[in-house]
Amino acid sequence: MPDRSMIFPAAEFRRRTGALQAEMATSSLDALLLTTPADVFYTTGFLTRFWESPARPWFVIVPASGDPVAVIPTIGADLMGRCWTRDIRTWQAPDPLDDGVSLLADTLEDLVPSRGRIGVPMGVETHLRMPLADFLRLQDRVAPRVFVDGTAAVCRVREIKSELEIEKIGQTCALAAAYDRVPEFAQIGTPLSQVFCDFQIALLTAGADWVSYVAGGAGPGGYGDVISPADDRPLAQGDVLMLDTGAVRDGYFCDFDRNYAIGPPTDAVRRAHDVLHAATDAALSALRPGMMACDAHRIIADAITRAGAVTGRGRLGHGLGLTLTEWPSLTPLDMTTLRTGMVLTLEPGVEIAPGRIMVHEENIVLRDDGPELLSRRAPADLPVIGA
Amino acid sequence: MPDRSMIFPAAEFRRRTGALQAEMATSSLDALLLTTPADVFYTTGFLTRFWESPARPWFVIVPASGDPVAVIPTIGADLMGRCWTRDIRTWQAPDPLDDGVSLLADTLEDLVPSRGRIGVPMGVETHLRMPLADFLRLQDRVAPRVFVDGTAAVCRVREIKSELEIEKIGQTCALAAAYDRVPEFAQIGTPLSQVFCDFQIALLTAGADWVSYVAGGAGPGGYGDVISPADDRPLAQGDVLMLDTGAVRDGYFCDFDRNYAIGPPTDAVRRAHDVLHAATDAALSALRPGMMACDAHRIIADAITRAGAVTGRGRLGHGLGLTLTEWPSLTPLDMTTLRTGMVLTLEPGVEIAPGRIMVHEENIVLRDDGPELLSRRAPADLPVIGA
Repeated sequence: MPDRSMIFPAAEFRRRTGALQAEMATSSLDALLLTTPADVFYTTGFLTRFWESPARPWFVIVPASGDPVAVIPTIGADLMGRCWTRDIRTWQAPDPLDDGVSLLADTLEDLVPSRGRIGVPMGVETHLRMPLADFLRLQDRVAPRVFVDGTAAVCRVREIKSELEIEKIGQTCALAAAYDRVPEFAQIGTPLSQVFCDFQIALLTAGADWVSYVAGGAGPGGYGDVISPADDRPLAQGDVLMLDTGAVRDGYFCDFDRNYAIGPPTDAVRRAHDVLHAATDAALSALRPGMMACDAHRIIADAITRAGAVTGRGRLGHGLGLTLTEWPSLTPLDMTTLRTGMVLTLEPGVEIAPGRIMVHEENIVLRDDGPELLSRRAPADLPVIGA
Repeated sequence: MPDRSMIFPAAEFRRRTGALQAEMATSSLDALLLTTPADVFYTTGFLTRFWESPARPWFVIVPASGDPVAVIPTIGADLMGRCWTRDIRTWQAPDPLDDGVSLLADTLEDLVPSRGRIGVPMGVETHLRMPLADFLRLQDRVAPRVFVDGTAAVCRVREIKSELEIEKIGQTCALAAAYDRVPEFAQIGTPLSQVFCDFQIALLTAGADWVSYVAGGAGPGGYGDVISPADDRPLAQGDVLMLDTGAVRDGYFCDFDRNYAIGPPTDAVRRAHDVLHAATDAALSALRPGMMACDAHRIIADAITRAGAVTGRGRLGHGLGLTLTEWPSLTPLDMTTLRTGMVLTLEPGVEIAPGRIMVHEENIVLRDDGPELLSRRAPADLPVIGA
């Protein structure tokens, strides 16, 4: 049977483990305890949609040296056995009396000295995917070992994509071809909910393994927000339609926002689209490794302001890869240094009128000499449907 | 614009709030702090796929009396404003210095007396969807208020579905019509990955808003596991194909496993399918409110054993509704009392040979006089493709 662990060769997982261990050493961590789909996939190759069920926790421990150890429910043993990780310890979950806590504690006691420090991602953009009461029990069980914040080690490593990862993300970004088909199914009179449905079908047809995220909006001269599910309102002459997707292929995401005018756009809409394109241009030509995330925000925001438009209040881009959004955030407050190999989205947003916005998003990898687009860029001119 | 909060009328949210507050009173809780997509949707009507981005935490507080309060990132204000909740407090997220902690602490200080107890779901099948370091900060900020386990209150209320919810889940279960189309696209020679793609398209075409979960397997005389993503192996004569879906409509899940023989099945496979059907029958006729989840497990497991087959090791069904799987779990260890209005899956599994299993799953609501199927049942005879 073709083997999903072969998404990457063993050498890639060894590289990742080594990179994590080097970061762990600088933070004096004796182990990392990982619990989320992205971190488990990153360290072992274990890729499944079964995370959708909140019933069972899953654990990977990265020791200070040696390979990661998986402590997982029995139901995952077959799939994990086909992945890179060889040390797999299982329990029969869900178990209301002891849902892996004893097995995890025993494993940590095996791997971590009794005065050791165990890193757990606790910082921004993280959460602990296990019952909090079980984590408190675990703390007691493995004391005097302590749990400390391991976010930096995970974040600094995952932020920099290998060429193998960049190739994967590029393949996912090729799903943007589905946007070319939007005029086939988004017509005046088509309910937005039908457009969302057909867009998901177009993404699957283009080669997505699954579609984890579709959002968007449509409204006269702009839309109100970008996170709502579709309603059944039919597209109308004068609407701007935006479709945002996080489709997945081999476990890696793309993340695009693209716009369409339904019928001839107003001057304000056309100008807003031009501003979004120009702000993306500004970032594409100016971004360099060594800048900070807040510098990227400033470059995009300044380009919008220079064009006489009003920039959106939210972030103007973010990391991308194993999840729809990753560190860093392109905001005025994020001081993360941008480094070669980071995959980022550039997501300028403008406010056309109160409650009327437009956003646009492209995906890049940052190279030594600046950004490289990961897919064919959206057209400079706002596409018009039914003109 | 049609309003997604209108998935349910305000009276339904008032009923939920009242039911939570009654449970909170029995546990002496002065508030509940909720952080997950299911709990936020349940209490406010706020439905979005934006949870896919791990960047921002979202909070709902259910006070001991009065309506829930939403403490959320600004990006969600527009959508939350169209929902039932009226008290909405926002901050500009993500903020690496203070990602809502101060605003949340202030709000808790408003709503909870200084010696108060704040329930947070910490138990089985839960997790806290916010950075752990921020939760620790929050604990310090709102002391001497304490956080205690609020799982029971949330679980006991969410477990019992209202007639409005049952109607919604029934509509989602009607998506099982997509299974009728499987023989159109699953043929000898079709790669399993293509089958998964076409099945997702069939679910969307049948009316799914999105497809949060598709898994399954195919193999000679049974499959090896039920959580793996699809590989590219072509379906072959003698395979058993299983497709498992958790599709979503209006925020509610269905969860089915259904099987197909590729070419004429072996006697062992046919017998296994008969056993799965008979075990489902046993549960459909015997389950009653007042039994425990472990009784349901025993009824299904006994039916399998009586038929001379070997039952799978995992759970044999579970709750269903706002997430793909919910409390309770049909295992020998789960002592949850089954109550009228619970929506459950019946999921018998048999081991045909070492590493060869078959599973089957139907969705029911438990009524006073026993189970009521939420969709047309799978055929008693294993469907054969390409015979």
